[in-house]
Amino acid sequence: MNALKRIKIGVLCFLSLLALASCTPAGPVFTDEDRDAIADVVRQALDIANTSQAWDEYVRLFYTEDAVLLPPNGEALRGRDAIQDFLASFPPFKDLSFEQVDVDGSGDLAYVYGRYSLNLVDSDGTIMGSDRGKFIELWTRLEDGSWKIHHDIFNSDLPLPEAASGN
Amino acid sequence: MNALKRIKIGVLCFLSLLALASCTPAGPVFTDEDRDAIADVVRQALDIANTSQAWDEYVRLFYTEDAVLLPPNGEALRGRDAIQDFLASFPPFKDLSFEQVDVDGSGDLAYVYGRYSLNLVDSDGTIMGSDRGKFIELWTRLEDGSWKIHHDIFNSDLPLPEAASGN
Repeated sequence: MNALKRIKIGVLCFLSLLALASCTPAGPVFTDEDRDAIADVVRQALDIANTSQAWDEYVRLFYTEDAVLLPPNGEALRGRDAIQDFLASFPPFKDLSFEQVDVDGSGDLAYVYGRYSLNLVDSDGTIMGSDRGKFIELWTRLEDGSWKIHHDIFNSDLPLPEAASGN
Repeated sequence: MNALKRIKIGVLCFLSLLALASCTPAGPVFTDEDRDAIADVVRQALDIANTSQAWDEYVRLFYTEDAVLLPPNGEALRGRDAIQDFLASFPPFKDLSFEQVDVDGSGDLAYVYGRYSLNLVDSDGTIMGSDRGKFIELWTRLEDGSWKIHHDIFNSDLPLPEAASGN
């Protein structure tokens, strides 16, 4: 191989590498693996909610640091501390369940439209009532590849209690 | 220029074109233009809601054909007809406003976390009360390039009316 040929091949290799480097896609595609990863986080979160109720662990697993939780009949909450305080002050409940209805995504962004149900209990764990409703969660893929919620909103299917003024 | 040189340059051009062709991203990136397009649809929808209240026009502009609206204290509604019926049966209101708080997207998927406010009126248009709250909308870019909502959920900031049983 002569010197010129070697230089030309070198140039071709360099250009090919340059093309590959400049062609890295903006973000990974949303795959069935991502759906499974999200479903797995949900399973872990439910396990905490239905056993230890260790809300510090729950919020670190489920939410990004600056996540926004939008509960009904209250102000928006931003950040893990605010969300943890909200969960800790929630009326006692058990049997929390989440059902995923529509899940999709694009790149590092995904959403879950789902349904929830839970039983409200007294201090002895006796069921005093129940609630069921729907939610939309916005998920993001973090740099370490894990998925976490950055926006979360829910509301109840149940009718409003009759207003006191209506009696 | 000798023949060999011309062939080498030809090969380089061909490889460059090949690299470019194989690097087309999976979908369009979410840009400031997309944000503006979404904001523009919202402005048009608000204009309808605050003037004609032509809900058939509103739902065709704002929602995909099989969009899901998740109102508080009621069941999920799927499809433009169900959403239109809901809007038509809503207590009379005026002065609807939407504020966009967080807007982002990836490819053909986008979300808006925002705030709403409105005044409830009687049949004469006299203000009888007000509501304010928050929403998350999921938007999709259709094949014609327009953006529409495919999932929409909201809830009120205002506290629940005191339960009748609590008196």
